[in-house]
Amino acid sequence: MTTIKVIEKPKLKNAILIEGLPGVGNIGRVAAGYMVEELKAKKFAELYSEWFFPFVMLHKKYKIHLLKNEFYYVKGRKKGQRDIVLLVGDCQSLTPQGHYEVSEKILDFVEDLGVTEIITIGGLATGDLESKKKVIGAVTDDRMLNKYKKYNIDFDAGDKVGYIVGAVGLLLGLWKQRDKDGICLLGQTAGFPIVTDPKAAETVLEVLTRIVNIKLDMKKLDKKVKEMENFIRKVEALQKRALMEITKTGSGDKGQKTDETRYIG
Amino acid sequence: MTTIKVIEKPKLKNAILIEGLPGVGNIGRVAAGYMVEELKAKKFAELYSEWFFPFVMLHKKYKIHLLKNEFYYVKGRKKGQRDIVLLVGDCQSLTPQGHYEVSEKILDFVEDLGVTEIITIGGLATGDLESKKKVIGAVTDDRMLNKYKKYNIDFDAGDKVGYIVGAVGLLLGLWKQRDKDGICLLGQTAGFPIVTDPKAAETVLEVLTRIVNIKLDMKKLDKKVKEMENFIRKVEALQKRALMEITKTGSGDKGQKTDETRYIG
Amino acid sequence: MTTIKVIEKPKLKNAILIEGLPGVGNIGRVAAGYMVEELKAKKFAELYSEWFFPFVMLHKKYKIHLLKNEFYYVKGRKKGQRDIVLLVGDCQSLTPQGHYEVSEKILDFVEDLGVTEIITIGGLATGDLESKKKVIGAVTDDRMLNKYKKYNIDFDAGDKVGYIVGAVGLLLGLWKQRDKDGICLLGQTAGFPIVTDPKAAETVLEVLTRIVNIKLDMKKLDKKVKEMENFIRKVEALQKRALMEITKTGSGDKGQKTDETRYIG
Amino acid sequence: MTTIKVIEKPKLKNAILIEGLPGVGNIGRVAAGYMVEELKAKKFAELYSEWFFPFVMLHKKYKIHLLKNEFYYVKGRKKGQRDIVLLVGDCQSLTPQGHYEVSEKILDFVEDLGVTEIITIGGLATGDLESKKKVIGAVTDDRMLNKYKKYNIDFDAGDKVGYIVGAVGLLLGLWKQRDKDGICLLGQTAGFPIVTDPKAAETVLEVLTRIVNIKLDMKKLDKKVKEMENFIRKVEALQKRALMEITKTGSGDKGQKTDETRYIG
Repeated sequence: MTTIKVIEKPKLKNAILIEGLPGVGNIGRVAAGYMVEELKAKKFAELYSEWFFPFVMLHKKYKIHLLKNEFYYVKGRKKGQRDIVLLVGDCQSLTPQGHYEVSEKILDFVEDLGVTEIITIGGLATGDLESKKKVIGAVTDDRMLNKYKKYNIDFDAGDKVGYIVGAVGLLLGLWKQRDKDGICLLGQTAGFPIVTDPKAAETVLEVLTRIVNIKLDMKKLDKKVKEMENFIRKVEALQKRALMEITKTGSGDKGQKTDETRYIG
Repeated sequence: MTTIKVIEKPKLKNAILIEGLPGVGNIGRVAAGYMVEELKAKKFAELYSEWFFPFVMLHKKYKIHLLKNEFYYVKGRKKGQRDIVLLVGDCQSLTPQGHYEVSEKILDFVEDLGVTEIITIGGLATGDLESKKKVIGAVTDDRMLNKYKKYNIDFDAGDKVGYIVGAVGLLLGLWKQRDKDGICLLGQTAGFPIVTDPKAAETVLEVLTRIVNIKLDMKKLDKKVKEMENFIRKVEALQKRALMEITKTGSGDKGQKTDETRYIG
Repeated sequence: MTTIKVIEKPKLKNAILIEGLPGVGNIGRVAAGYMVEELKAKKFAELYSEWFFPFVMLHKKYKIHLLKNEFYYVKGRKKGQRDIVLLVGDCQSLTPQGHYEVSEKILDFVEDLGVTEIITIGGLATGDLESKKKVIGAVTDDRMLNKYKKYNIDFDAGDKVGYIVGAVGLLLGLWKQRDKDGICLLGQTAGFPIVTDPKAAETVLEVLTRIVNIKLDMKKLDKKVKEMENFIRKVEALQKRALMEITKTGSGDKGQKTDETRYIG
Repeated sequence: MTTIKVIEKPKLKNAILIEGLPGVGNIGRVAAGYMVEELKAKKFAELYSEWFFPFVMLHKKYKIHLLKNEFYYVKGRKKGQRDIVLLVGDCQSLTPQGHYEVSEKILDFVEDLGVTEIITIGGLATGDLESKKKVIGAVTDDRMLNKYKKYNIDFDAGDKVGYIVGAVGLLLGLWKQRDKDGICLLGQTAGFPIVTDPKAAETVLEVLTRIVNIKLDMKKLDKKVKEMENFIRKVEALQKRALMEITKTGSGDKGQKTDETRYIG
């Protein structure tokens, strides 16, 4: 089961969803997370799922933290600004089936809230540390290409880019099946695993803020990334370890001790 | 969940379903796909499923393409021609359970549409590049053997052929449990992986067109195969890579870079 | 989904279910299958499941055979004979979850039919070709121990025997949760994989026929085993291969060619 | 499906659940199991699940034992004592999804019974045989920190402890999503696999009995642990073997013989 616990049901009109869950370079996670903080967006719902890892993390040394995704909103404050829903979180699903089920659950929820368009944010791993920062785009429809071609997005990436895995791709693919519009923005990054790339996130944020017509002070980005990174890295490292333990023992609560960390269960 | 999005509900009578999803030599995919094009069959439904790979592909460089199966139809145009439903698509299920669930969903849908008989198309890998092109058949029932023995199909293959995996076999096995009739046509092919075999597809098409009493100009087959193959190979290569990444990391959106391709997520 | 297709609903009273699905030494499969033939038991239902392997077999060279389990019955013919339901089949489930779901489905079905007691038949692998043929027993309850201790069953095997996997064990464990009675009879066998052991099956049949008060001519057993074995071995070999292919490629319909056999899909 | 068979529905008020399922050092299993025995707690429900291993164990050499979790209760006997529900059992789930489903089922059940607070018990593997026995705590909320800080629990362990796997963590994480309170108590143990650590269990019991205001005679603990350990070790060893067999063969009922043990099916 995937459950959404609604804390508050905001009244939104013609809203846009911006998704930033963990992924390549954590570009979406960083970009959307920074928007949440800088825009003082308000949390209104939490999603948790049987498709996530079956463990809890410890927050502030002693507090139980269930793995979850979170929905925030910020209302348009002036003309030309739309209501925004931001989706951030600790993790994505553990299995293919879970990716589909969680994505459909998210779309049901935001469609009902009044979201009419989706922007997903991800990373494109180039394997090249020297490569230029660019934002690659993919859309549900030619209408969207026309709408977004003025934003300096590279829409010519289909040969370099084979496929888009997980929420970044599936949310758009399943949204398109509902005859709705969306775009994904992919920041180029070297893509070495477990590296958060704030520079790529900033490049995406520059495009994104112009699209949603919001000014964002980027000065605190590096500092915020360092704060976030600690938690993101921890989740990643734990997922990797837990995954190996699950693979080895089938239940994950009898893992071998490793040198660096201790685990409990 | 497996969902069928119905675009148009055609009125069919005593129709025959021809299935051609990707498989050994992509013989079914090529044969059914060529029929769709040459007969200008009309798309009327799309099936997508949580049992498919959790990624989207990029179509025409910038357009999101959710993995799906597609239903087309063509009405019988003259006496002796039956209404035909064609089932083609990007992929089959990722898991055993998925194969059963998607097959049952397809059968529920086409039975309700008025389909009374099923022809599935697959490949038989001989491992021998020199082997003669033959069409091997298997049926749900002795009735079908009598009906189809005049079409130069080899029905004596049970020793060479152990079992039939996936949609080609399951659609017939589950259809038989509904007390309904069907046949599968298997083109012999060398069967080296990721090789589309248009010659084997042509041999099957020769039998198939006589069964459904339709003339098909084979001249464009080679050209069409080359067009299709590009997309088919891409899906196959991506599935393989995605699969390895899923196996390694459990979620597939943190895959390692490989030399040939770049991925995103 | 696990589906039971009912061909005929027999009227049974205080019936006993004898389960003999494939397993160690195929002892249950052989013993129950021989009873079906010798008692001319009548097939009245077929069970098939998404938890089975996603392929069909070819029967008599050209006929599609969906993997299934089959229910037969034979009415008690004289005083002291009970109505008997026999459960035989091609395979068991592919996953742990499937074992539970199929077992519960079977129990729901037979409880509704009027079955009040269950006998499951399996094998105990000793790893020792010289070991004496013995029948080991395990029961749901002390009541059953008293009832069956006169039949020369070894009820002292708990130390040698750790656990009972699959239908042989689960059917009894889940039946006991319904406050119902049952026994399992395990024939000792060397247990080298893919060896059908007719001698062990005969030893179990000797105990079993006394329990159900039926005389069985054992002369044809060897001949029948040879007939059955061909099909059983084929399913086993195919499952092994299919399993390796599924593990390698995720869908099983693109398997590598091996030297001994050809596959299709 | 996860099923709870209710033997008796006790009337409880403001009850506390103490969970002690198998895990690191089997500390929870031993501590809660000892409380069940010493307090003569009464069994009132059994939980079994398709997410457990698909085998039954043999109890007292000949009796079928389905893997299960068990609920016991003991009413508060004097002022300052609360009604207690104890959850003990043979195993946890085999898969991530199962961990979530079984945990939710448990919480639905105990919330409906009148449980208002949860204590889960686990182990923290230090990898160090010399390490001091300490009890590490984690809570759902700051309220709980204030309530429990007087009990000599180390609440400063968030850096050493990354995450808590399985029931110990998930029951609390999912309980917190219901806006309810709980704490977990983790005994430090060397954590070498398949070692039951009665000393660590005793340290946790000392804290736990003060929390629930109950005196417990610890003299019989060592003896009881030895009795329990036999069964616990057997389940563990069998799960490991079964798991390897499932991984190898896909169904677990055709496992290879190993030198130490024999298996049946």
